[in-house]
Amino acid sequence: MKTLITNGTVVNSTGVAQADVLIDGETIAGVVAPGSSLLGFDLAANVDRVVDAAGKYVIPGGIDAHTHMEMPFGGTFASDTFETGTRAAAWGGTTSIVDFVVQYAGENVLDQFALWHEKAAGNCAVDYGFHQILSDVQDSSLTAMDELLNEGVSSFKLFMAYKGVFLSDDGQIVKAMQRASDNGSLMMMHAENGSVIDVLVQQSIARGDTSPYFHGLTRPWQAEEEATHRAIMLANLTGAPLYVVHVSAKQALDQITAARDTGQNVFAETCPAYLYLSLEDQLGATSDEWGSFEGAKWVCSTPLRARAEGHQNHMWRGLRTNDLQVISTDHCPFCMKGQKDLGLSDFSKIPNGIGSVEHRMDLIYQGVVMGEISLPRWVELCSTTPARMFGMYGKKGVIQPGADGDVVIYDPAGHTSIGTAPGRTHHMNMDYSAWEGFEIDGHVDTVLSRGKVVVDDGQYLGTKGDGRYFKRGLSQYLI
Amino acid sequence: MKTLITNGTVVNSTGVAQADVLIDGETIAGVVAPGSSLLGFDLAANVDRVVDAAGKYVIPGGIDAHTHMEMPFGGTFASDTFETGTRAAAWGGTTSIVDFVVQYAGENVLDQFALWHEKAAGNCAVDYGFHQILSDVQDSSLTAMDELLNEGVSSFKLFMAYKGVFLSDDGQIVKAMQRASDNGSLMMMHAENGSVIDVLVQQSIARGDTSPYFHGLTRPWQAEEEATHRAIMLANLTGAPLYVVHVSAKQALDQITAARDTGQNVFAETCPAYLYLSLEDQLGATSDEWGSFEGAKWVCSTPLRARAEGHQNHMWRGLRTNDLQVISTDHCPFCMKGQKDLGLSDFSKIPNGIGSVEHRMDLIYQGVVMGEISLPRWVELCSTTPARMFGMYGKKGVIQPGADGDVVIYDPAGHTSIGTAPGRTHHMNMDYSAWEGFEIDGHVDTVLSRGKVVVDDGQYLGTKGDGRYFKRGLSQYLI
Amino acid sequence: MKTLITNGTVVNSTGVAQADVLIDGETIAGVVAPGSSLLGFDLAANVDRVVDAAGKYVIPGGIDAHTHMEMPFGGTFASDTFETGTRAAAWGGTTSIVDFVVQYAGENVLDQFALWHEKAAGNCAVDYGFHQILSDVQDSSLTAMDELLNEGVSSFKLFMAYKGVFLSDDGQIVKAMQRASDNGSLMMMHAENGSVIDVLVQQSIARGDTSPYFHGLTRPWQAEEEATHRAIMLANLTGAPLYVVHVSAKQALDQITAARDTGQNVFAETCPAYLYLSLEDQLGATSDEWGSFEGAKWVCSTPLRARAEGHQNHMWRGLRTNDLQVISTDHCPFCMKGQKDLGLSDFSKIPNGIGSVEHRMDLIYQGVVMGEISLPRWVELCSTTPARMFGMYGKKGVIQPGADGDVVIYDPAGHTSIGTAPGRTHHMNMDYSAWEGFEIDGHVDTVLSRGKVVVDDGQYLGTKGDGRYFKRGLSQYLI
Amino acid sequence: MKTLITNGTVVNSTGVAQADVLIDGETIAGVVAPGSSLLGFDLAANVDRVVDAAGKYVIPGGIDAHTHMEMPFGGTFASDTFETGTRAAAWGGTTSIVDFVVQYAGENVLDQFALWHEKAAGNCAVDYGFHQILSDVQDSSLTAMDELLNEGVSSFKLFMAYKGVFLSDDGQIVKAMQRASDNGSLMMMHAENGSVIDVLVQQSIARGDTSPYFHGLTRPWQAEEEATHRAIMLANLTGAPLYVVHVSAKQALDQITAARDTGQNVFAETCPAYLYLSLEDQLGATSDEWGSFEGAKWVCSTPLRARAEGHQNHMWRGLRTNDLQVISTDHCPFCMKGQKDLGLSDFSKIPNGIGSVEHRMDLIYQGVVMGEISLPRWVELCSTTPARMFGMYGKKGVIQPGADGDVVIYDPAGHTSIGTAPGRTHHMNMDYSAWEGFEIDGHVDTVLSRGKVVVDDGQYLGTKGDGRYFKRGLSQYLI
Repeated sequence: MKTLITNGTVVNSTGVAQADVLIDGETIAGVVAPGSSLLGFDLAANVDRVVDAAGKYVIPGGIDAHTHMEMPFGGTFASDTFETGTRAAAWGGTTSIVDFVVQYAGENVLDQFALWHEKAAGNCAVDYGFHQILSDVQDSSLTAMDELLNEGVSSFKLFMAYKGVFLSDDGQIVKAMQRASDNGSLMMMHAENGSVIDVLVQQSIARGDTSPYFHGLTRPWQAEEEATHRAIMLANLTGAPLYVVHVSAKQALDQITAARDTGQNVFAETCPAYLYLSLEDQLGATSDEWGSFEGAKWVCSTPLRARAEGHQNHMWRGLRTNDLQVISTDHCPFCMKGQKDLGLSDFSKIPNGIGSVEHRMDLIYQGVVMGEISLPRWVELCSTTPARMFGMYGKKGVIQPGADGDVVIYDPAGHTSIGTAPGRTHHMNMDYSAWEGFEIDGHVDTVLSRGKVVVDDGQYLGTKGDGRYFKRGLSQYLI
Repeated sequence: MKTLITNGTVVNSTGVAQADVLIDGETIAGVVAPGSSLLGFDLAANVDRVVDAAGKYVIPGGIDAHTHMEMPFGGTFASDTFETGTRAAAWGGTTSIVDFVVQYAGENVLDQFALWHEKAAGNCAVDYGFHQILSDVQDSSLTAMDELLNEGVSSFKLFMAYKGVFLSDDGQIVKAMQRASDNGSLMMMHAENGSVIDVLVQQSIARGDTSPYFHGLTRPWQAEEEATHRAIMLANLTGAPLYVVHVSAKQALDQITAARDTGQNVFAETCPAYLYLSLEDQLGATSDEWGSFEGAKWVCSTPLRARAEGHQNHMWRGLRTNDLQVISTDHCPFCMKGQKDLGLSDFSKIPNGIGSVEHRMDLIYQGVVMGEISLPRWVELCSTTPARMFGMYGKKGVIQPGADGDVVIYDPAGHTSIGTAPGRTHHMNMDYSAWEGFEIDGHVDTVLSRGKVVVDDGQYLGTKGDGRYFKRGLSQYLI
Repeated sequence: MKTLITNGTVVNSTGVAQADVLIDGETIAGVVAPGSSLLGFDLAANVDRVVDAAGKYVIPGGIDAHTHMEMPFGGTFASDTFETGTRAAAWGGTTSIVDFVVQYAGENVLDQFALWHEKAAGNCAVDYGFHQILSDVQDSSLTAMDELLNEGVSSFKLFMAYKGVFLSDDGQIVKAMQRASDNGSLMMMHAENGSVIDVLVQQSIARGDTSPYFHGLTRPWQAEEEATHRAIMLANLTGAPLYVVHVSAKQALDQITAARDTGQNVFAETCPAYLYLSLEDQLGATSDEWGSFEGAKWVCSTPLRARAEGHQNHMWRGLRTNDLQVISTDHCPFCMKGQKDLGLSDFSKIPNGIGSVEHRMDLIYQGVVMGEISLPRWVELCSTTPARMFGMYGKKGVIQPGADGDVVIYDPAGHTSIGTAPGRTHHMNMDYSAWEGFEIDGHVDTVLSRGKVVVDDGQYLGTKGDGRYFKRGLSQYLI
Repeated sequence: MKTLITNGTVVNSTGVAQADVLIDGETIAGVVAPGSSLLGFDLAANVDRVVDAAGKYVIPGGIDAHTHMEMPFGGTFASDTFETGTRAAAWGGTTSIVDFVVQYAGENVLDQFALWHEKAAGNCAVDYGFHQILSDVQDSSLTAMDELLNEGVSSFKLFMAYKGVFLSDDGQIVKAMQRASDNGSLMMMHAENGSVIDVLVQQSIARGDTSPYFHGLTRPWQAEEEATHRAIMLANLTGAPLYVVHVSAKQALDQITAARDTGQNVFAETCPAYLYLSLEDQLGATSDEWGSFEGAKWVCSTPLRARAEGHQNHMWRGLRTNDLQVISTDHCPFCMKGQKDLGLSDFSKIPNGIGSVEHRMDLIYQGVVMGEISLPRWVELCSTTPARMFGMYGKKGVIQPGADGDVVIYDPAGHTSIGTAPGRTHHMNMDYSAWEGFEIDGHVDTVLSRGKVVVDDGQYLGTKGDGRYFKRGLSQYLI
């Protein structure tokens, strides 16, 4: 299969070019001056398909570096399987995900890695890689880090919260970081002080403050700021590169900024939720002072922050100043019925997570429309830097010869309405949308995954199992 | 003329690719998978020249955004003409310069602009653009800013030093910045507190401290830090984007870092001299406590700083953290005999400047060898960001279709010795080298300027006047 | 005259004590345990007067280190003479002022110093010292600094604004600071960038924006922040101790905080106006968008800042954290009729200044009531630190043996209404009050100046000329 | 007993005064003008004893707010009992200590408090108060906080290190801080990340790196900086005032400075050891690369820091800028023979601690001689602020009527040699001195404790049990 994308505006992370893109098989074979020919040779006549991208952006496919497909959590599973979740990703212009292999305390790391391969193999619509979660780090987990590196897992996530489930203590974190410092892998960190949060949650429930709104109040910014600083300092001690996931508090971001100013290898992502949604939203449509259960739709951790405190503007600024380098979704969907409602009388039992994998490219493009970021920065945040950060660059994250034919044709004159009608306004396996009512001044028109058109003109054209496992290398973003 | 560069490693600012580069006429026509053919079409057979770049880097030609060819200064002229200086640039892999049109206090801006065009036209070896210096800003200069923008001059340089010659007072600076804020142009700033320096110089001379070493002592870091902060604050007040030239003091860099952390459009360059040379060097080879006149070789402003104070490491760090975005040379050469020796008995009469235009690409590549920066960052600092910063990107600063065929083939297995033998170890019109004794673990092999090979295999193949004026647009780097 | 103050609560800057205070002649002779006797010796029976201070605070008399009595400005004079101004000070519990000898550009420093002595001698109600203003610093002014030090003038004020009137350029400032660094005196700085302000004022007037409200808008915080940083850096360069007067912008305070964190001898005062009044007040009671001329009442420099920007809270915080060490008034009163109205059609012609010398002790005590500062901190800010800062401690600023009998008995159960009725609600020579409507939960009951009761029970008991010149020593507050 | 101290220079924290001090019984009755008489009444003739302090400083007795008399630790006890330790304190001009009641994990807080009272009662040479250590905070400990407040214990110390012994986790810390925020007490914190240190120690021992030098290397500055920041943030969350003990790392101090700049109630002490001693000292006099066991003399936690890293200068600066408010000793002596030598083959078994209670006033006075701090600042750091910080001011920490007659007469013309001869060059119960070879340009001449002369002219004149328990109130230093 040979495809020529003509007349489009190729957007890379440093700027744009008017160029045609030739894909031969699964790989980009050339980026050439527009006009469908080269040295008199008629390119269009020698390909199987010509896609006209006039007036549209031709961008490297999105990379969502933080998803949790069918993640087991509190007795249930994230409602998207690898099949449904990656298909939704494709719909939204995301052609690669990096999902987290879950190892809970007490489980064996390599067993879990094998299990996740089983879950994903043959089911995915787009390419996928794995990060490995290490909970309650034991010596066997440290050994596993080296083995997994050979398997294309070059990033390991630790938790400073969720005692007995995910949490590693600081000594365990140091040991894992020492290993990362030695083998060159990247430490990812859920940076919230779980010990503090556990006390606040317990006190809140004991007081009868049980509605979803209190989820946010019991995870204050201080818990995030503190853990972020602690992670930075442990990374400083060990020399390990650090990547802080889902930053939502401006004070946490300030710690990251300060560390980066010193030249330490500290990186961070934020998520669409922290750019657009807020704690106030969790009060829902009710006259009750502490909100209705509707707020459960937006229960996630780190939590949504108070709009009035200015965290959102701070996040946008961090995206502009490159103190935040990546936008991921932390896609972890749960349905309201049968899942979120486990916490009807106790917010701490609500499965944590928001489903966004399908909407990230659109939501962040809207930031371009709003003037928050530039067009090339959109591509950089959503594709190029994720690729560089996680050792995928060259094959992913860029439109250049040798790269996989993961290409999205995005129409700035199109429009996207995000709503609650499953199968129509979103394709994630959820019975609600956290993004209901959002309107986007652009549209994902065509999506190619390794040269194959998987979405076009409002149709899903892919096949289950199109996606392949991606063996990642070391980060290409370290300084 | 059609050229195919095969088998090389194309280095862009985000990473590398194995790719062939096709140049058709003056323009890059395609970047394609290696193998010299596309869809079965034999590219090599359809071009005039095939350049084998196996084992070598293929990079966008260097852009030196800060040069002063034949600049009048203190009764003499910088010793490189546009002819000799741009030829030296070509030798060193720099295929574009942006030179400063000088308007001294009392002169008319547009007259000077016309004069500089006269000087450069038909003489240059590589493409050139102009920044405009505005001295002692008058109302007519403000009007000229809009006119010059139409002429492709989108950046204007002010001085906070050199009273009666270059200096504008803060009120004048504010007026120019207001205009820049309106028309979108970029303010460049020589940030040293001249009023303070003038007093210190006068006191030093009065005390009999007249050797070149005192040049540095009378331009203390406080004078640079202060002016840098002041420029930032005036830019903050007016909303103008700011670019600080030739940063040498770590404390000045800290001010820039702090401003950038807030999201203000503040940018800065440093120069090779501040990365490798030091105040101690100005003592020269002598037993005299205050040094010999040899030190005049390195008299420039801002001055070289004391090595012991750690400024150099701070500059490298700033380059890594993107607090410094550009490396330029501030190329402003003067010969020792007949020029520098004007200040034999009074350092303040030594023409200020160091010649480096030829060595920038090599000297900074050595930073890659030393592990200070990465290979893609070398290209970003020396070519891509200068292009984006100064409104040249797309045609310059990148290897992609539509870009000018400004390409350098750099051999990491080559070697370059920098010495004092004019015509052999350097081609700048100088009777000494500030860089004598520097050894580089790499070599500029081949240089193409708009598709024409101008340097190859140790031969200069260009013709006087190859270079053309480049009409620049607004900065493509603002956030 | 021997006086015993019994049963009061003596408040010093570190805490309180229940103690009797014995004043013998002009001097405090003892601070003794309450009970009016010592070792069986009946103190009360051996003094001329016993003052019962039960339930009241006994504090060292206030020191206002920033006043401008009868200052010539713009063709008129500040409306308080040394006689009226110091009498008003006494009414308000301030028993010492340090006034500024004015030397305008072109005048001779020592002549002016002599002139000011003439103005003050025999007229003052309380003790007074002098700072010396140095405008457009010339060599003769530098020489004068040493001479004045012998005359008890240990602090010199420079201006970074008011070109042609007060302003010294940075080179001149450096010269004066070098002298201060040598002779140990303190540099005081009016830190606003006058060059920038002049342009903004000129542009505002040219646009027809002439009402008092524009006074504030044309002196933006950036102009204060910038000059403050510049002054700090010049002080850093020269080693001179620096005292920044009338800080009103939070960003300027942040610069001071940062410098103090490094251990540099940088100090600062704020004034009651910046703690309670705001730019919004200058709009006055009118429907006009840009305010009425009423706003002229509060035209002072640095200007009142926008309440919404949070400067006031920042100032209170600075007072708590000792980033601000002193509260002075910058007392410089002008009447509305015949003085302020010079600027009826052009705000830049309004004489700058607010009259506050009488109300400082009350207004800051209200800060204690409001919980902004502690009781000992009130004494420290208004008396002890001014005494230490300006070389008066031991004689002034403390209740201990050997100190002058400058004592105020302050009633926390009393009340003070500040209004516009001259002679009744204030005693300053002004036809309005900037403080109309302020209510204070405390009252100055009795004031002793060097052992003489000058105010008691709502009566002024002093005589013109009670006050004496105080020869000050070097600052006792340097670190 | 009535005493008159004549002709001395009384030094308080804001400055000096020439004054006589009258002590009647246990209490200061008056501070009066020098001359031994008042209103003609002959004071000298009416007292029992006249002490001539001509040429000497008369200061409030020192307060050492951090001692560990006979503390049980690792199977042994700190070698000074309350008897020997407080007698040594008296010798050195310290007339009050605040010792720590130790509650180890598993013990009952109130039982321990009772036990400590038993240990101290009737044995002390000078007055003493108690802080309470809370280890592994349980609910009963929270309740005990309120009860202890009534008993005069207004400060509670938590540990972020020493798991299973002292450590409380962050949730426990938050609970204790919530209580402190409610009842007004002060949280004291041993701020080192014990979890990290435990791993590093274990790894060091496993590698065979067992000498005392490795004690310092396994407690890196990052562990202190991190814990300090964490403590600050937990205090910020809960609103509790925080006092960080024994700060030794400059980076930890920077965190404290930053928090104080925001106006948070964060305080800190350093100790003489961190001002004068260093990690390099622990190498001892040996050619062994990793030092001899001699280094055990200086094993304490936080550890001594590397001299080359500049921590000492930073501590002195913090003392000048009031980012450090108090100097305590953390007096916790162990003999080399039979105690320190428990760790002969494993540094982690060396009892931690240095004995300094006797030398603090001298060692810090030497800082005055060296020009690091001023004379009044010496008194403030060693007496006045400790009194204010820990709720003792008025009775302690100042020379004013009503205060306890705790007075030291210090001779700036005297000399003190500190050596190893127990009973002669020090009186602490130790078989070595950490301070051997230190020479002090001053001397403690006479010490009065509540009006009784306990040390004079090289003689100890006190009696066991002179010292009384001091019921402390809430901190008088909060802002």
